[in-house]
Amino acid sequence: MSKGTRLRIGLVGVGRIGRMHAEIVARQVPGAELTMVYDAARDPAREVAARLHVDAAESAAELVASDRVDAVGICSSTNTHLEIIELAAAAGKAVMCEKPLSNSLAEVHRAVELVNASGIPFMTGFNRRFDPGHQAVHEAVEDGSIGNIHLTRISSRDPELPPLDYLKVSGGLFMDMAIHDFDMARYLAGPVVRVYAQGGVLIDPAIGEAGDIDTAVTVLTHANGSVTVIDNSRLATYGYDQRVEAFGSRGMASSDNRRLHYTEVTDSSGTRQQPLMRFFIDRYADAYRREWDAFTEFVAHGGPSPVSVHDGRAPVVIAEAAAESMRRGTPVEVDGALG
Amino acid sequence: MSKGTRLRIGLVGVGRIGRMHAEIVARQVPGAELTMVYDAARDPAREVAARLHVDAAESAAELVASDRVDAVGICSSTNTHLEIIELAAAAGKAVMCEKPLSNSLAEVHRAVELVNASGIPFMTGFNRRFDPGHQAVHEAVEDGSIGNIHLTRISSRDPELPPLDYLKVSGGLFMDMAIHDFDMARYLAGPVVRVYAQGGVLIDPAIGEAGDIDTAVTVLTHANGSVTVIDNSRLATYGYDQRVEAFGSRGMASSDNRRLHYTEVTDSSGTRQQPLMRFFIDRYADAYRREWDAFTEFVAHGGPSPVSVHDGRAPVVIAEAAAESMRRGTPVEVDGALG
Amino acid sequence: MSKGTRLRIGLVGVGRIGRMHAEIVARQVPGAELTMVYDAARDPAREVAARLHVDAAESAAELVASDRVDAVGICSSTNTHLEIIELAAAAGKAVMCEKPLSNSLAEVHRAVELVNASGIPFMTGFNRRFDPGHQAVHEAVEDGSIGNIHLTRISSRDPELPPLDYLKVSGGLFMDMAIHDFDMARYLAGPVVRVYAQGGVLIDPAIGEAGDIDTAVTVLTHANGSVTVIDNSRLATYGYDQRVEAFGSRGMASSDNRRLHYTEVTDSSGTRQQPLMRFFIDRYADAYRREWDAFTEFVAHGGPSPVSVHDGRAPVVIAEAAAESMRRGTPVEVDGALG
Amino acid sequence: MSKGTRLRIGLVGVGRIGRMHAEIVARQVPGAELTMVYDAARDPAREVAARLHVDAAESAAELVASDRVDAVGICSSTNTHLEIIELAAAAGKAVMCEKPLSNSLAEVHRAVELVNASGIPFMTGFNRRFDPGHQAVHEAVEDGSIGNIHLTRISSRDPELPPLDYLKVSGGLFMDMAIHDFDMARYLAGPVVRVYAQGGVLIDPAIGEAGDIDTAVTVLTHANGSVTVIDNSRLATYGYDQRVEAFGSRGMASSDNRRLHYTEVTDSSGTRQQPLMRFFIDRYADAYRREWDAFTEFVAHGGPSPVSVHDGRAPVVIAEAAAESMRRGTPVEVDGALG
Repeated sequence: MSKGTRLRIGLVGVGRIGRMHAEIVARQVPGAELTMVYDAARDPAREVAARLHVDAAESAAELVASDRVDAVGICSSTNTHLEIIELAAAAGKAVMCEKPLSNSLAEVHRAVELVNASGIPFMTGFNRRFDPGHQAVHEAVEDGSIGNIHLTRISSRDPELPPLDYLKVSGGLFMDMAIHDFDMARYLAGPVVRVYAQGGVLIDPAIGEAGDIDTAVTVLTHANGSVTVIDNSRLATYGYDQRVEAFGSRGMASSDNRRLHYTEVTDSSGTRQQPLMRFFIDRYADAYRREWDAFTEFVAHGGPSPVSVHDGRAPVVIAEAAAESMRRGTPVEVDGALG
Repeated sequence: MSKGTRLRIGLVGVGRIGRMHAEIVARQVPGAELTMVYDAARDPAREVAARLHVDAAESAAELVASDRVDAVGICSSTNTHLEIIELAAAAGKAVMCEKPLSNSLAEVHRAVELVNASGIPFMTGFNRRFDPGHQAVHEAVEDGSIGNIHLTRISSRDPELPPLDYLKVSGGLFMDMAIHDFDMARYLAGPVVRVYAQGGVLIDPAIGEAGDIDTAVTVLTHANGSVTVIDNSRLATYGYDQRVEAFGSRGMASSDNRRLHYTEVTDSSGTRQQPLMRFFIDRYADAYRREWDAFTEFVAHGGPSPVSVHDGRAPVVIAEAAAESMRRGTPVEVDGALG
Repeated sequence: MSKGTRLRIGLVGVGRIGRMHAEIVARQVPGAELTMVYDAARDPAREVAARLHVDAAESAAELVASDRVDAVGICSSTNTHLEIIELAAAAGKAVMCEKPLSNSLAEVHRAVELVNASGIPFMTGFNRRFDPGHQAVHEAVEDGSIGNIHLTRISSRDPELPPLDYLKVSGGLFMDMAIHDFDMARYLAGPVVRVYAQGGVLIDPAIGEAGDIDTAVTVLTHANGSVTVIDNSRLATYGYDQRVEAFGSRGMASSDNRRLHYTEVTDSSGTRQQPLMRFFIDRYADAYRREWDAFTEFVAHGGPSPVSVHDGRAPVVIAEAAAESMRRGTPVEVDGALG
Repeated sequence: MSKGTRLRIGLVGVGRIGRMHAEIVARQVPGAELTMVYDAARDPAREVAARLHVDAAESAAELVASDRVDAVGICSSTNTHLEIIELAAAAGKAVMCEKPLSNSLAEVHRAVELVNASGIPFMTGFNRRFDPGHQAVHEAVEDGSIGNIHLTRISSRDPELPPLDYLKVSGGLFMDMAIHDFDMARYLAGPVVRVYAQGGVLIDPAIGEAGDIDTAVTVLTHANGSVTVIDNSRLATYGYDQRVEAFGSRGMASSDNRRLHYTEVTDSSGTRQQPLMRFFIDRYADAYRREWDAFTEFVAHGGPSPVSVHDGRAPVVIAEAAAESMRRGTPVEVDGALG
């Protein structure tokens, strides 16, 4: 592929996650090249730009407007997403936006309007859809291997408590953490019409004092009648636990956890395997790379977005419904056109 | 062990499940011997008696009263359980009673009263507690291996639809099938204080017409704040799917399905393992045998019942609450002293 | 099946292994019934007979001649096998004889002659052929799943050192232990034409002083050009390690070890599974039962022996060749008609 | 780490494997930077140089002599290794040389002399030592987890036949393919003193006509008395099969194959996992990266070479012995100081 035909990407935000995206785009995506980065914090932006041989823009607006930028990756903090989307929509640039689009349902609706009105190619960054294992579950649903889907089970547990300061602004467990699982449920079983959620503080009372929960169970009812059960914990001491299972009329597909290696040591006390991966960037390294491949392919060849702006909105709608269900203690109906 | 010190057991009911129990007691329980059987159907009773070299009683009363019967195994149909318990309580004979004690909550309360008043050794036949794998999960909870329990996940799916005629008298999915899982949840996480359940008809409309459901999800909240999620299906075409997982502050213990053997065939299309076991008697062969070992040990040496009459009642209470939750569409509180 | 059509079996030898066979035949083989036992040690014979409701013969000759005995199971010590085979051949009774037929090649040849001349149905007790997992490997070879066989790998390691007194009369590691693996190699890949073996004393010098080895590797070349590699150890401290793998032009089939249950405990140090089974009777419980089913079926319906007297001889021939190869330090050719 | 302290690496050879090394050094090794490449084929060298923002040298000598090159990576064809080593030894530059050092034992001895005389830091590129799984087996040996080592098992099978043209100049299966396994055996169990090998042509007669074999079994006896068994096939149709197992007085450590993901699909025909990885660069991606980390660390901090020039020679010695053993049909002794 000649350099000229590669999608030229400018990235807004080079914090921990933005830096990872920058390295991936610069080095691992055959169909793309990184041309520019921007961050409100100048030094990190310059450091990343120098290391990756790209330019550092002085503002998000400069980056979006640059004629060396075909598409904008949005990896800045959640509360800035909407304004960058507005810039890109105005400039007619394609967008790959990290999840969640916004913690505010009003802003999310506005993002949908902007994208629809402008017609820009838009993809939401739900990376787990691009994990080869979870994707294989999706394929087993789509190709009929498991028949009609009846039940989906998702266990999603983080290896470490986030800092309390973060928790206070995170939007809460459902918006911050389970939102990935709400997307996964939709990816496998389609639109959601009812949400039941309950949660508790079992790990650390300080989390409760901060107004959040640390352990939750959510039951989603889909438009097709199937049911998804999600369990979340903020602290799985054994690692990053990420399992997805779809069960249907003909069988079951299960995506299991991954380990760094598969060496077993067996002695008289039994057999031991090494711990699960702990770091999400390691666990989902393939997924992040393949996410950019999908975006590049989508912008180049058109067709439906791999993860549309509507797919970006629905988990936010579900997260709000989950929070409300927990508050009220009953299931909450969701508009099927939104959920 | 001399023959004289073995527990002499009389079995009431030699249908499919009673016949299995008879063979186990006669042949595989070092601490017990089968001395008598009774069934309302004479021919099967005589056939079993002849094959196992034991006597066939003319009535349940004769069996319970016999001086060659130290303990009574109740494997007859559910609606006869209470009357045999009454006979045994009156005669002061130990009892091992198949689940459920009764489909009627009133009868179950009566059974508890009878057992408590008479002081007879009593065990409820929740066989899955004696499965080596599920028991290892229990031990990991009890010995602190997983820390404080936060979440329990149970998948319990049957390999074949029961006949519609059976479904109509089964008491419904929660009472007939999920009752085992309600017991498992209590075995791992203790008393239940709240139940949320929802179900649907995804497999066969005839099941709905018969007034039942075929697919269900139940969320139990335990007195200790932990949560159990159970999913049930009447038809897992791939086999008898029986998985239990407990997650806590230090780790996770998971009991996986078993196969007849562990041969894998690998070719260019991937690796194949043989199907799951389909028949509950094969899957839980160890459990049924170990259940009788536990009963024999309990009667011989006293101490708390491995599965008390209260443990027999609680899942019935939970099953009623689950059915009510599904009808009302909201969680239902359960008296912690009963649940 | 009516009692009259069952194969009536008399068992010679009720030591540890004979007792196991007696219980299996008496209780778990639908097509057979145990009618008589004999052991040179009277008390054990009477004890087993009483427990299983059968007769105790006064001599092997009486048992073989009895008109209540259709088939003779030979589980007595190896040095008595030939004489019982002689009695059975003379009486025209079917025989199931434990491995090895004899430690003496001359006696083994004589056994083949007797069986061939008399035409009695004869089966050698190589139980591992009837293990469901190993059998599935065999089937994958036979049905073409793995294509033409190229390599076979067998790991066969015992969980405990035998007593030194036993080792001195055992016939040596190749004859006593690896003989099972030689049979497995033939079961999967057919006749053997060359043997290379080497061994050492790595576990306990006393074994060397007793004239034996405790660790060995054997390379068998089959008539079809494929190669089998076997490793043996007298002491796998972690349990009874029994693995078989066949590799061919289209794939690979592997029979893995079995555990009592499949519960995993995962914490920050990794994931633990319970130890392997240690006791061969537990590990091969299915195999022993299915071996008798196969014998019963064979005697009832004719056809080729599941494990013929020739199949009983070949591993003895191979074991002798292995011992010779080790002594000489070079491969040893085997007559393809015998190996 | 500032740029100044990174090890500056020049790579000779940018064919398939050299290109992979170039990308790794340029992008994934924190302690190193790629500064120059050379290849006898000019265009590929320029293309790689341009893509990775480094210089292309006009000759190997220029590269080795450059003051922007601290260390030389040798990835050119095997027959050029010695001359580059000579240049590097003369220039006092550190070397990382791909396996095998040479197909000629005389050249290998000369390489050892050059390295020893010059004292340059030298590492042989046996990448599999750096695979996390195989390394965990090594650690289980070193830290006593499995006690004293008794047996090592290695299965090493390639997913595709190499072109016949390649086979004719490859040096033969033992030198070209099994050499990795000979190194692995030494890595786990130490020096080798005796080699028995046998092989055959089971896959394609053309391989035999080309003077090679396609299937082989090798038995290595180590100085410590333990034994390694290796099986090799040129064609495992199901993928790149790479398994290593060490067995000792206290236990066993096994490094199993890896898959791209761990999703299972279960239906009534059983459970299916996806195929094994097929491409060695995918399978050993971690190993290649960690190999360069180890080299960088070694050059920076001294100490014994992770894979010394002696470790590079020994597998060549063993490969020659294996070929001789196969020709002669007997085991071949190896000088323990070389093996």
